[in-house]
Amino acid sequence: MTTKANGQFITFEGGDGTGKTTQIKLFATFLVEEYGFDVLCTREPGGTEEAEKIRALLVQRGGGDWDPLTEVLLLSAARREHLVKKILPALEKGQWVISDRFVDSTYAFQGYGMGLEQKQLERIYREIAGDFMPALTFILNIDPAEGLKRSGKQLEDTDDTAEKTEDRYERMGLSFHERLRNGFLEIAKADPARCRLLNAAQPVDDVQEEIRRAFLEKFSLPRHTTAQDGEKLRNG
Amino acid sequence: MTTKANGQFITFEGGDGTGKTTQIKLFATFLVEEYGFDVLCTREPGGTEEAEKIRALLVQRGGGDWDPLTEVLLLSAARREHLVKKILPALEKGQWVISDRFVDSTYAFQGYGMGLEQKQLERIYREIAGDFMPALTFILNIDPAEGLKRSGKQLEDTDDTAEKTEDRYERMGLSFHERLRNGFLEIAKADPARCRLLNAAQPVDDVQEEIRRAFLEKFSLPRHTTAQDGEKLRNG
Repeated sequence: MTTKANGQFITFEGGDGTGKTTQIKLFATFLVEEYGFDVLCTREPGGTEEAEKIRALLVQRGGGDWDPLTEVLLLSAARREHLVKKILPALEKGQWVISDRFVDSTYAFQGYGMGLEQKQLERIYREIAGDFMPALTFILNIDPAEGLKRSGKQLEDTDDTAEKTEDRYERMGLSFHERLRNGFLEIAKADPARCRLLNAAQPVDDVQEEIRRAFLEKFSLPRHTTAQDGEKLRNG
Repeated sequence: MTTKANGQFITFEGGDGTGKTTQIKLFATFLVEEYGFDVLCTREPGGTEEAEKIRALLVQRGGGDWDPLTEVLLLSAARREHLVKKILPALEKGQWVISDRFVDSTYAFQGYGMGLEQKQLERIYREIAGDFMPALTFILNIDPAEGLKRSGKQLEDTDDTAEKTEDRYERMGLSFHERLRNGFLEIAKADPARCRLLNAAQPVDDVQEEIRRAFLEKFSLPRHTTAQDGEKLRNG
């Protein structure tokens, strides 16, 4: 397919264990195969070689060791680098950019989770990005106890100790994760034109179906998925 | 001596080769020996173990590779950490804190040198520090060509290659350093109550004498220096 459209910036947000990575892979494949889009998948914090070095600084330590505002500044430095070196150039070339986390994660983790003032976080974001925001944001919502169980299972399945240093938020206890979930719910409620709240406790294919439907509505694109696509998705 | 006074925050600013390090050492010794002050010398970017890791990120690369605003955010992250983990706790304990560079360096390097908007740099600083500013700032002023000659000589005198990676600004050409010097002059002019502009082309002892005089005036302290102190300084 060669459907032509300008590139857009789409983000996936939510707590750990909500299945963001899986959903992004399925959605990116859908955009490439069904619409012929040039798709770039990326993540935060990180996304460029240099921004990943800032990520490494953030995750090298136990949670809570950096002053929370220092953490916001490091995240913002990584975000600025990600934005000007990767996201904006890709959009200018007409690519569709999908990011696993973006500024809403800062609002949820450092704002609702760590208690920094939302207005301050918004002011800092505006300094690095002006009015730029994702065109569409999927917020994957799940009961934190269930999400932690899922992400915990993933950690047990891997021998990669580098991965294990990235679980600093997972070790912060259930009340932190309740605040985080509440934060994401508030963010979704405050900006319904941009955000789509999804029930991540559903089967993977049902979540993906909702994502595709929301995407088609948002960008007024003709529907290309068929029963056959559903079949491919399940087997692929 | 046991003259008692609340601790204050004093900063030294200026381009490379202005002799900040030498002047700070002499001034700190003076405060300890003549006033019995508890003195803490520190530097930016860095000053704490974690902030030095951010410094390492900044200096590991050739100048100009980071987006200038990313650089400001990294500097601000390091500054926030420095402020809340070292400077403010020391002041609360009554220590006198002397920093080799602080926010004026960001205004001069990233503002006047790299062309970022001064107002934006001030807004970002206020996010991390509110109204906090040094009580007294010495700005060491020298002709950039002379300063670079002096700092170039220092670099040749050392075999420490780690030091050599920190010369990224020195390699940026004379016009950058002219803008930098002009920036420091503007900063001094804009805040005469806080800033003392010093002619760093003078002999070391004459610069130090001016620093001590300005210090005594600023904090209304009785003069303890004598001819003997001058002797000690020259021999010491």
